[in-house]
Amino acid sequence: MSTNFRVEHDFLGEKQIPADAYWGVHSARAVENFPISGTRISAMPDLITALAFVKQAAARTNMELGVLDAKLADAIVLACKDLAAGALNAEFVVDVIQGGAGTSTNMNANEVIANLALEKLGLDKGRYDVLHPNDHVNASQSTNDVYPTAVRIALWLGIERLLASMAFLRTGFEAKALEFKDILKIGRTQLQDAVPMTLGQEFLTYAIMIGEDESRLREARALIQEINLGATAIGTGINAPGGYSDRACQLLAEISGVPVEKASNLIEATQDTGAFVQLSGVLKRVACKLSKICNDLRLLSSGPQAGFGDIRLPARQAGSSIMPGKVNPVIPEVMNQVAFEVIGNDMTVTMASEAGQLQLNAFEPIMGWSLFKSIEHLSQACRTLQTNCVAGIEPNRELLAKRVRESVTLVTALNPLIGYEKSALIAKTAMKTGAPIGEVAESLGIMSRSELEALLVPEKLTQPIALVRGGL
Amino acid sequence: MSTNFRVEHDFLGEKQIPADAYWGVHSARAVENFPISGTRISAMPDLITALAFVKQAAARTNMELGVLDAKLADAIVLACKDLAAGALNAEFVVDVIQGGAGTSTNMNANEVIANLALEKLGLDKGRYDVLHPNDHVNASQSTNDVYPTAVRIALWLGIERLLASMAFLRTGFEAKALEFKDILKIGRTQLQDAVPMTLGQEFLTYAIMIGEDESRLREARALIQEINLGATAIGTGINAPGGYSDRACQLLAEISGVPVEKASNLIEATQDTGAFVQLSGVLKRVACKLSKICNDLRLLSSGPQAGFGDIRLPARQAGSSIMPGKVNPVIPEVMNQVAFEVIGNDMTVTMASEAGQLQLNAFEPIMGWSLFKSIEHLSQACRTLQTNCVAGIEPNRELLAKRVRESVTLVTALNPLIGYEKSALIAKTAMKTGAPIGEVAESLGIMSRSELEALLVPEKLTQPIALVRGGL
Amino acid sequence: MSTNFRVEHDFLGEKQIPADAYWGVHSARAVENFPISGTRISAMPDLITALAFVKQAAARTNMELGVLDAKLADAIVLACKDLAAGALNAEFVVDVIQGGAGTSTNMNANEVIANLALEKLGLDKGRYDVLHPNDHVNASQSTNDVYPTAVRIALWLGIERLLASMAFLRTGFEAKALEFKDILKIGRTQLQDAVPMTLGQEFLTYAIMIGEDESRLREARALIQEINLGATAIGTGINAPGGYSDRACQLLAEISGVPVEKASNLIEATQDTGAFVQLSGVLKRVACKLSKICNDLRLLSSGPQAGFGDIRLPARQAGSSIMPGKVNPVIPEVMNQVAFEVIGNDMTVTMASEAGQLQLNAFEPIMGWSLFKSIEHLSQACRTLQTNCVAGIEPNRELLAKRVRESVTLVTALNPLIGYEKSALIAKTAMKTGAPIGEVAESLGIMSRSELEALLVPEKLTQPIALVRGGL
Amino acid sequence: MSTNFRVEHDFLGEKQIPADAYWGVHSARAVENFPISGTRISAMPDLITALAFVKQAAARTNMELGVLDAKLADAIVLACKDLAAGALNAEFVVDVIQGGAGTSTNMNANEVIANLALEKLGLDKGRYDVLHPNDHVNASQSTNDVYPTAVRIALWLGIERLLASMAFLRTGFEAKALEFKDILKIGRTQLQDAVPMTLGQEFLTYAIMIGEDESRLREARALIQEINLGATAIGTGINAPGGYSDRACQLLAEISGVPVEKASNLIEATQDTGAFVQLSGVLKRVACKLSKICNDLRLLSSGPQAGFGDIRLPARQAGSSIMPGKVNPVIPEVMNQVAFEVIGNDMTVTMASEAGQLQLNAFEPIMGWSLFKSIEHLSQACRTLQTNCVAGIEPNRELLAKRVRESVTLVTALNPLIGYEKSALIAKTAMKTGAPIGEVAESLGIMSRSELEALLVPEKLTQPIALVRGGL
Repeated sequence: MSTNFRVEHDFLGEKQIPADAYWGVHSARAVENFPISGTRISAMPDLITALAFVKQAAARTNMELGVLDAKLADAIVLACKDLAAGALNAEFVVDVIQGGAGTSTNMNANEVIANLALEKLGLDKGRYDVLHPNDHVNASQSTNDVYPTAVRIALWLGIERLLASMAFLRTGFEAKALEFKDILKIGRTQLQDAVPMTLGQEFLTYAIMIGEDESRLREARALIQEINLGATAIGTGINAPGGYSDRACQLLAEISGVPVEKASNLIEATQDTGAFVQLSGVLKRVACKLSKICNDLRLLSSGPQAGFGDIRLPARQAGSSIMPGKVNPVIPEVMNQVAFEVIGNDMTVTMASEAGQLQLNAFEPIMGWSLFKSIEHLSQACRTLQTNCVAGIEPNRELLAKRVRESVTLVTALNPLIGYEKSALIAKTAMKTGAPIGEVAESLGIMSRSELEALLVPEKLTQPIALVRGGL
Repeated sequence: MSTNFRVEHDFLGEKQIPADAYWGVHSARAVENFPISGTRISAMPDLITALAFVKQAAARTNMELGVLDAKLADAIVLACKDLAAGALNAEFVVDVIQGGAGTSTNMNANEVIANLALEKLGLDKGRYDVLHPNDHVNASQSTNDVYPTAVRIALWLGIERLLASMAFLRTGFEAKALEFKDILKIGRTQLQDAVPMTLGQEFLTYAIMIGEDESRLREARALIQEINLGATAIGTGINAPGGYSDRACQLLAEISGVPVEKASNLIEATQDTGAFVQLSGVLKRVACKLSKICNDLRLLSSGPQAGFGDIRLPARQAGSSIMPGKVNPVIPEVMNQVAFEVIGNDMTVTMASEAGQLQLNAFEPIMGWSLFKSIEHLSQACRTLQTNCVAGIEPNRELLAKRVRESVTLVTALNPLIGYEKSALIAKTAMKTGAPIGEVAESLGIMSRSELEALLVPEKLTQPIALVRGGL
Repeated sequence: MSTNFRVEHDFLGEKQIPADAYWGVHSARAVENFPISGTRISAMPDLITALAFVKQAAARTNMELGVLDAKLADAIVLACKDLAAGALNAEFVVDVIQGGAGTSTNMNANEVIANLALEKLGLDKGRYDVLHPNDHVNASQSTNDVYPTAVRIALWLGIERLLASMAFLRTGFEAKALEFKDILKIGRTQLQDAVPMTLGQEFLTYAIMIGEDESRLREARALIQEINLGATAIGTGINAPGGYSDRACQLLAEISGVPVEKASNLIEATQDTGAFVQLSGVLKRVACKLSKICNDLRLLSSGPQAGFGDIRLPARQAGSSIMPGKVNPVIPEVMNQVAFEVIGNDMTVTMASEAGQLQLNAFEPIMGWSLFKSIEHLSQACRTLQTNCVAGIEPNRELLAKRVRESVTLVTALNPLIGYEKSALIAKTAMKTGAPIGEVAESLGIMSRSELEALLVPEKLTQPIALVRGGL
Repeated sequence: MSTNFRVEHDFLGEKQIPADAYWGVHSARAVENFPISGTRISAMPDLITALAFVKQAAARTNMELGVLDAKLADAIVLACKDLAAGALNAEFVVDVIQGGAGTSTNMNANEVIANLALEKLGLDKGRYDVLHPNDHVNASQSTNDVYPTAVRIALWLGIERLLASMAFLRTGFEAKALEFKDILKIGRTQLQDAVPMTLGQEFLTYAIMIGEDESRLREARALIQEINLGATAIGTGINAPGGYSDRACQLLAEISGVPVEKASNLIEATQDTGAFVQLSGVLKRVACKLSKICNDLRLLSSGPQAGFGDIRLPARQAGSSIMPGKVNPVIPEVMNQVAFEVIGNDMTVTMASEAGQLQLNAFEPIMGWSLFKSIEHLSQACRTLQTNCVAGIEPNRELLAKRVRESVTLVTALNPLIGYEKSALIAKTAMKTGAPIGEVAESLGIMSRSELEALLVPEKLTQPIALVRGGL
């Protein structure tokens, strides 16, 4: 801790700021006002990078449009580049849960950038008479356009990582689908034995599900590419010079590498958080799907003796502090929990969005934080799921084969041939007596055992085909 | 449809009302304004009964306090008695989803009661110059105290039925617990085989869960016994004569048989919907528990050949339009879906409650409707679950016994004797080789097969007991 | 009620069915098993229409592929046409909340169609030896492909209506935006006075919001166009003849007019309910937006004396049973409540989707019912909102103009000229003293009153513009 | 980072552990398996304290029952005391989001305690041959009883703090209620002007609401006092000696100061998470109420010129980076966001609870973490709300008085005297013409202006009273 202070002031009065702090009086007020979670916005490095991109685009636009002196603009741009590289993350001291629609986050950025830019100019921190957090760093801007824009870019970057993690997991399931493509098993509906399929078909399903969700997530990401930079306070663009918005958006796309586009109506874009709700809804969809897959993996690997036992998950740690040798599906379980968290986060985002009033939604900080957590945790969970679980899954070949051989459900395929009612009679009798369905069919005088066995070749029943007497 | 009309008016002007309708102009406006769900408040007969109780208590209090002429009061009381008996449910024509904080429901009741009371007096419907829906039926009242009070009484009556249904189901599980008390099986944690228990212990758990939830529901019901009758518009009691509130609450308790109590602060009670949120939260708890129980029943009955197969659910209908003989756990599945609905309803109640503003929550109609559905559907689902499923459950005795005999997890009980690490070694080896744990223990030189078998008597492992070498 | 019965049987035994009922034994079992909500699937006429489309497409395909005799196929097609026209809605007797993954709904359809087709053939109901609900009506089908397909088509048709309702409402806001385009007012952020805008800009925002949500809903609708018809039990197409799936999907598109497409992987499509979750998420987005708009309308019309009072909503009914003359925002309030219901429904859909297991999700009935309610109620609420509220909104011109004249927040526009700190000083002083900002600016020696007034022309402050000393 | 390692092993093989780490191989595996949130369980110091209490109670009971040697037990007890005091929080390295039903957290505690106890015995870390994490620290225990018990105690301690914070806030509202007790104002229902009340009555309501929620929270806390210590793996108490459970629970109550009680059925208690759902539901209730209060504070302080303006919140920081002098309700806003988070957390807890299967719920870690966040954030937000907002609220006396004088809604009080319809006529006319109601009443010939003014004394209208002609 520094023992030296500089004095800053705002409209509430003066305040001592540690001499070595890049943040200033506005950040200090916010730290006092929002002692909520103990997690600072530095926990979202993407957001800091995104703020640096936005401030850099603004400074360059301001300079081009004559609003900002070149010397000051250059210093701001240099400062922003350092920030984007993560040099001053620790200076972002405001709590992630904060009132004020992001103003404190924006002012934290303005102050850090101002002081770093002052240093670039060879001046002391706090020399706001030369370079002011509001008048220069925030020139032509308002929290109400800067903050939503930065949150969107930060989320975009996070989604990029999540998409990569999902692809990583999908590829894992694809590999397993290929590996298991010839292993016959009995499919299940409503947890009851149904008709034959291959284990490869089952695993391919998971890959396809994830692939579809990647597409949906990409579409939802495109919705948050629409930004309101230049809207300033309420979308009317007050205090921004003519042409600012277009140019700033263009530069931001260049600087960030994110294909942002200016919204067609900035007033609407300033108060509308529908894209966050939709993104959250798609993350919820992803979570549901991944949770369902993990539920399946846990079911399929249940046992080893008193469960489904179709597959074995790799052992990753001792499963129990009391039951020796027990191996639990801990990796799918962690994904389930992340999914539950994401679904909870979606509710938070929904409520925050619905609560927006008139020209602004004041609750974007909790939306941003909730979405950030959903994206990061899903991304991490996908990676551990592939690395520590899916990659090592092994089939229980003997058991699966035995069950197919003995399955009563094969009679399903006889429907087109002998009708639903006779098929049902065979099934019911076989289940009651435990006799093989061929034997039952014969004893009931419906068809001979050999005829039935010639028809019911499980390998053929894993694709569309309707039996007719005398062959397929 | 009637072809004759009477003319009523409100501050918007005149309106033709079918001559035989007991409802009037205010109800007619509401029907036009809220064509939302097509479900009328007549779908909630308890609410109509409750409104009749409240209006009767109010009329009697008003008469006692000199606000209402005895002749009019008597006519109103008679009308309310008919209403409480369900005589005019069809006259409650307003949509269950309605704006206006219940005003339309209250006015629907005021109008129906006024016109029925007029008939009791031998007068034509619409003679509001004699007996007026607002001035007489609604005397000393406001929607803002009548409606919340009536909703609470209606929910109380519904909960009474739900408690009976839960007890009915609980008793069913208790009977099965007794029936299955000597059937040993392997318990499961995280879907993996764990240590022995009895099937009776497993089913007793469900009975206890439900019993606990009955207690919690009873406590939550007590919270909605607190009413704000006499609060009138905002809780200050404007327009109610001194003493009205106490007496009306007292009479209401007598008339309804529901032990309602006057809230200690009527302003708070008028705007606070916390008790609805809490009740909904407890219904959500009940739903979670019942859903979990049904998930278990579906798991335990999975198979018949490729699942857990611990139990068999009674067949209730053909499970599949294509797979003959397939029997699905359709009764537990319907409970799961009711549970999902209840959890969704809780979200609706939560949002409606949070959205209350200042002296009133305008969104009680959707709270009432959501809670009504949760209570009724849970109640019905409990009954079909017991009657059509639990009562007919049968154990798979042979399979359960075989699994206990062969289970590797019995080594758990050796921990206190030989330590976790040696026990784990036995388990791991047994799982790998498929050899019985006694054989493995002997081959590893840890203990003799006979010693192990003497120790590991499954029956004894279903209760607290720590093994020590040389016996228990 | 009929007093004559015919006898039908299923694998549980015989059952008496009313002679005039088109439904049969499977429907009867379901009615007994699922006495949950009292609302029958006949409450969803679109679903019955959709089932009729699917069964018709199946019958024609079966005939073309030689699976079904032309005479039987023709009778089924005729029956389906009647059904699609709504002729036998009352015969759909199963509860909307049902176990069994839709099997009971599918069998209800199979039975009604079979009996109607038998009549078309001049035969008695129940002559399943000639035309069987399973063997003929359900030929090449399973509940697991028919039901999800029908639900999707039904939702598609509902969304078509919702889109029309949203467009109707949007057009209303557009008209108001034009009407109000020259009315200046003070915008608000975080409920605090912000900078000037026009009332037209404010209302245009609502139109744009709704328009964007129409686009999003159209995209989500496209996701449910993907169907799994031909998947049969688990997606492998067992019992369907080669070529069935492609042809049936093609015919279904023709018959229904809905541009359905066959999913690329039928196993995945059979168990995946992600499109329902996403659709529900988008409906939640729509609900949030409409709720936010209604919150705004209620805020803007608050008063008449102690509120915002920017606008007046048309009076639609007496607002209070006790406060004469009170007019409440009942139409926006009903939309709020529909929104809360939709958000609750989304939670139900989410839980039901997450709970799917292995090759099927057994909980599609509650998903379908929840989505149906969300779509219908939103659609109805949009219409009443436009007709009974938005169309009659009037501005409070004098009050709005007065506030703009007196607003302290106009100093915002001085930032670029005199800097944030001096602007803040003017604002703070003006707020404290109540003096006009021009007077304050002059007394503080910052600029002359006339100079300030020349600069701060509210009309110009509703668009991007940065002030510089000496002019704009 | 240490450069020296010790080698530990588990059933997966050997692993290098930093020599100075108190955690061991099981913790290390978990760190690798669950790289999800980056937040370690050390972020929940109460949980570590609670684990130390449980392990201490277990060690003492084990010693008393002869399961554990006194020397080892003493060392474990000493280690637990250090842990409870927070000495080794940094050694709790496992992610808060983890698979495995808490096994990794339990093993992290077992390892840290074992190694610290070994040090107390003068031995090196890792000497598990002397004192083993499983055989000694975890003796007679399973994760499945230890972890739920510890989570409950940790939550109990957190709730203690939350209750204190709520009381602190409640006291603040009580003080304001007293301060504002004579300030008349117009109450509002449905955002429309209603009848008179005092600002003191309005603020007292908030105090009462919070007080009621304190009571409800205390009741919910009592539910989590019921613990399953002694249940071991599945509730049957396997491996625990006779009498262990009772004695361990008793000691735990003594050591922790938390009045824990042994559950009546340990099998049920081991799998049941209903108390968490109910606690979360009550926290949701608290959140709804606090959010509603903050919504009200934001409404009441809206303006300063174009809003409700009943009160002024203290300025706590600059409200805007662009609008100088703007002061926003940032403290209420942060509470709103915490409330949205809590409601989201409740959904997470609900899903996790519903997902429990058979003898265990594997998802308690996410329940614990979600509840922990809800409790802590609510507690912190209550404190900042009181300190930085409520304490400094000031009334807008002149404006409130003026509105009461001019209010049309006072006619409500005339209902009992002149009837609803005449009162409505006065109100409607006054609103239309802008004339005072006395003047209107006179001009309509209903009563004289002086008579009306004598009757309508606002001070008297804030309590129950029904007007009769000729006086009260």
